[in-house]
This record gives sequence, structure tokens and C-alpha cells, in this order.
Amino acid sequence: MQMKKFINDPHHLLPELLEGLALAFPRQVRLVGTNIVARAVPKAAGKVRLVTLGGSGHEPGLSGFVGEGMLDYSVTGEIFAAPGAPRCIEAIQMAAKDSPGVLLVVLNHAGDVLSANITMQAAKKNNIPVQMVLTRDGISYGQNSDSANDRRGLVGCMAVYKVAGAVAEQGDSLDECLRIAQKMEENTRSLAVALRTATHPSTGHTIFELGDDEMEIGMGQHGEAGTGRMKMKSADETAGIMLDMLLENLGVAAGENLLVVLNGSGATTLMELWIVFRAVSKILKARNINLVRSAVGEFITTQEQAGFQIMIARMDTELVRLWDAPSNAPYFVTR
Amino acid sequence: MQMKKFINDPHHLLPELLEGLALAFPRQVRLVGTNIVARAVPKAAGKVRLVTLGGSGHEPGLSGFVGEGMLDYSVTGEIFAAPGAPRCIEAIQMAAKDSPGVLLVVLNHAGDVLSANITMQAAKKNNIPVQMVLTRDGISYGQNSDSANDRRGLVGCMAVYKVAGAVAEQGDSLDECLRIAQKMEENTRSLAVALRTATHPSTGHTIFELGDDEMEIGMGQHGEAGTGRMKMKSADETAGIMLDMLLENLGVAAGENLLVVLNGSGATTLMELWIVFRAVSKILKARNINLVRSAVGEFITTQEQAGFQIMIARMDTELVRLWDAPSNAPYFVTR
Repeated sequence: MQMKKFINDPHHLLPELLEGLALAFPRQVRLVGTNIVARAVPKAAGKVRLVTLGGSGHEPGLSGFVGEGMLDYSVTGEIFAAPGAPRCIEAIQMAAKDSPGVLLVVLNHAGDVLSANITMQAAKKNNIPVQMVLTRDGISYGQNSDSANDRRGLVGCMAVYKVAGAVAEQGDSLDECLRIAQKMEENTRSLAVALRTATHPSTGHTIFELGDDEMEIGMGQHGEAGTGRMKMKSADETAGIMLDMLLENLGVAAGENLLVVLNGSGATTLMELWIVFRAVSKILKARNINLVRSAVGEFITTQEQAGFQIMIARMDTELVRLWDAPSNAPYFVTR
Repeated sequence: MQMKKFINDPHHLLPELLEGLALAFPRQVRLVGTNIVARAVPKAAGKVRLVTLGGSGHEPGLSGFVGEGMLDYSVTGEIFAAPGAPRCIEAIQMAAKDSPGVLLVVLNHAGDVLSANITMQAAKKNNIPVQMVLTRDGISYGQNSDSANDRRGLVGCMAVYKVAGAVAEQGDSLDECLRIAQKMEENTRSLAVALRTATHPSTGHTIFELGDDEMEIGMGQHGEAGTGRMKMKSADETAGIMLDMLLENLGVAAGENLLVVLNGSGATTLMELWIVFRAVSKILKARNINLVRSAVGEFITTQEQAGFQIMIARMDTELVRLWDAPSNAPYFVTR
């Protein structure tokens, strides 16, 4: 069966999708070096630069968050594949120019971490001031005592980009950017659910299998199996199961303040996300937890997978202010 | 087979999805009257109010565009069904309070137009100053001489909301809002393509049928058949076919300035939309047509249908300025 996607040559997905992004948002982003997305108008000297790296196929993430108030550079890999270290080093060198330092934000996935570690070593050798933060928000189904390093990176990276980006924008030091990024990262948890698989655009194969009446909780960002396969549930029931696990894992108590991001995987309608968000909101209210900020949309997808991620983050006054700070990134404009 | 959507009772979709929207964006929108979406903070007296009406199931449209700089009220119908006239009249009466007048923006679909016409008569009887603009951007496949009234409303309404909303925000008269809305409407054309159908969330039935290797150009906003059924084409070829028809229908000449909106139908990835946008951009460049503004994302969907709409609009300095004006609508924030 022919793959039903609007593409050209499956071997040229990456340069074509990046070119499209840059052409669609010429006032926000441009392409530099080898498949690296940068701000169209780089901030003048003296600002800490935020760099991220990761595979493609998750649009708008990660490159959709390059812009004033968020990322400075996004180093892109092929579909679901980490970019190699040489291109990450290329980006770090560009970023370090006229800058007091670089904060590298990396999602916790083996390939990305490997490239990031080589990049950090190279930076050290070249006396480039770089700090790295690993985003480890994705919890597993039924595992409430997981250690941070067991958790993979899901949509939580977006919250780190946003608050660390805001700190960098106001001219703060690399240490301060790192402190804020780490605070955000430590206080963020996400959990994914899937209803239907997607097709890998390079190979034309479906990414996983799921029964006609099944859903799976705990999926990874690339459709990796979760451990929570079960009969499909209603929106309210699904939100309840997932939120229980998230709140317990993060240790959220009554009276605390939360940011909730509801991130569609690709084919789940916004209608469904709004209905799920309603359930999330009601559950938090019943538990006397304050929903202080929220975002509902598609931020980091898995092709046309049906499903979503719920992200919760413990917020204080400082993080709320930085979350609210202005951004002109193509897919997260805030005023 | 069980419907694979995250919902609760299929008979309560509308109130639940609206509640979710209002809970997710409490600083932008709130619910008033009977399933009417209004701004959270209504503008003080003296401003022309923009009201729209239409069925649900197309999220984020239409209610996702209520906010400062765009709509004042969105009157929502059930899934793919026009709201009845009584609720439209209810919204018009709210909108007219302390206002010099109301601009009603209606997508050209039989049910919506019927409700709108009854509403206009009621407003006239009650001496409420209302003007109406009908958005008729959707062209048919292979019909370059269609008359305006043959064209159905597709994503073009968003451009009308944006520019007319900006004029209303700056305190201009109802006549001026109408002039701008009409100018935008007359200069806008859209064309849809589908690759894969979606499931109607109330009935659980698929909306249309399409072969495994087929695509269809000219689809309506609710999955109504187009007349351009053909073998699937590449992103570049599809963009070429569609753009040829759009440019001819609108009569665009070399040297003119265009806004292009690429609107995903629901399940088509942003990766694909960026690749299609790249093609659109190259074709326009080759024809010496200036791409002055663009937007790429999901604005008005058809559940999880795979496909997209290309919208083109002839822009002058005035329309570009209004398109760029700030908006805080949940799904179209501009700065």
C-alpha cells in the first residue's frame, strides 16, 4: 500500500521540511550551517544562547520553538534520529560567538545524549563555556518510584525552553539560566497515551501495533511501547488514570500550583484535547490543586499518531513570570 | 468497531469541548448564554463587535479565534451543524449592547446562511445595527469561472476575522469594518485536498470513502465530496495543481502580493505542511508573485481527516497592516 503522506522523496524529508519552516516564518527563523535552525535576527552580543538537538518527525518541535524568548539554535536529526555530534559542535561554536555562554537542552534519549556528551567534551577542550540540562519528564506506567535517569524526554523540554529562554533573554548569566532550567526540569512530569499508530515517513511502515479496542499508556516520544496496554477508556477515565500517576510521581500536594500542558500526538483532534483538558481541570479542582497556567495544542508530535501527553509542572512565582514572558517562536507566540 | 476517540458521551460533545476551551484559556475566553464563546474581558463600550456562527468539530475554528483583535462572540452549533437562529439572535443582542454595531461573519453553508438570515431579520426588527459578510473562498476543482455564491466557506473566514477584528479594535465604524471584511473576502480563495477520511464523533461513522492510492481535490469543510478525485501525487505536484487553480480563479498577476495560509485538516503532519509550503513558495517565486505573509498550522479542521487547504489572498498595504495587528485569540496569537 502506498504511504498516504504529502511528501516528495522520502530520502529528502529533512532539508525540505526545514526549508518550508524557514520560508513560512522568515521573520522568526533561518537556516544556518548544516540543517541548523537559528533565529532570523540573532540577539546582540552578551546574551546566553540556548541550543537544543534532536530528531525530526515531531513537528513543530523542536525547531518550531526557535525564536525570541525561547531557543537560539535547534540542531536537527533525520526522522526520529539524533543529529551527529559534529553538527552539534558546529552549532555550539556558532552559539558561543559573542556570548557569555551556551545552555544545551537535551531530551533524555540514548542517541541524543551520546551526541550531547561528545559535544560537551569538545566544548570543554575548546574552552567554550557550556552547561547542559537533560530533560527527563516522561514517567512509565505504574512506576511511581522511577529514578530521574529512567525517565525519557517528552514534551517537558518545551517548558524548559520557555523559562530558560526567558531568563537568557533578560540578560542573566549562564549559571542563572542553568538554575532555572534545572528547577523547571526537576518539577516537570509527563505521561503519554496512544490510541492509534502512525506511519514512519522514511520507511512507510507503521510504528507499532495496537488492537482496535485498545489504548496504551506510557508510550515514548517515537512510539516506543509503554507498559500500560488496556481496553480503551473514556476521556474522563483516561485523564483520571494518567493524572493520578503524574501527581503521585511528582509528589504534588493540595494547595500547590501547577502548569498543565496537553500535547496532541498528531491525529488526535483539538476537540478531544479540550474534552480531556476539562477532565484534568475538574480533577485538579477536586483535589484542591491550583491550575495556574495551561497550554493545549500540538507541540511535539509522533507523526499522525493518535494520542496525547499530559505534562504537569510545579510552578512558583518565578517560573510563572518566566512562562508568561513574551516569545515569538513560530509555534509558541506569547505576548 | 469502537470509535477511537477520547470522548465521553457522544451526545455531550459540544458543552464539554467548550468547557475545556474556556478552562484552558481563562484569560482569553469565557462561556456566556447558551454555548456562546465570548471574550473573557469584553472591550469597553464604543467598539464594533464581531460575531461568527458555525458548527463544531472543526477545532480550533471558529471559537479558537475569539479574543482581543479578532472575534467578540462565536455561536457554536453541534458537530458539523449550524446553530439555530434563536441562539444567534441571543449573541447579537449581547454584542449590540454599548456598541455602535455588529458585524456578523458567516461561512457560506446552507444551514449557517439560513440561521444568519433569520438573525438579520430579527436584528432589523429590533433596530440593532448589524451588517453581514458571507465568506465564500472555497473554489471547486476545475471550475475557474464559478460565481461567488457557488463557493463555500473554508479557512478564508480566519483572514476576515483577523483584518476586520483589527479594524474594530482600533475603534472604527461598522461601515469601515464591513468595507475591510468585504475587501478581504473578495480577494481570498481556498482549495482543499483530502487523503484519508475521518470518523464523525457523534455517529462513529466514517465521513467519506477514498481509495488507498487516491486523493481528492475540492473537498468541503465537512468532508463533502470534491470533483477532483485522482491518484495520489507528491507534495510538489499537489501544490502545483492546486496553486494553478487558485491563482487563475483569483486572477493573480505577476508582481502582486499574496498572503498564503496552509491549513491542516487534522491528521496531516506539520512536517508535510512545511514540505507543501516549500513547494507553494517556490512556485510563487517562479511566477514572480510576492509571498508577503503566511501562516501554517491547523486552523479549521475536519476531525482527523488527512489533507489540507491552501488559502491565497491578494494583499495591499492596508490588509497587511491589519493582518499584522496584535491578537490574543487562543489559537492565533500575534504580537
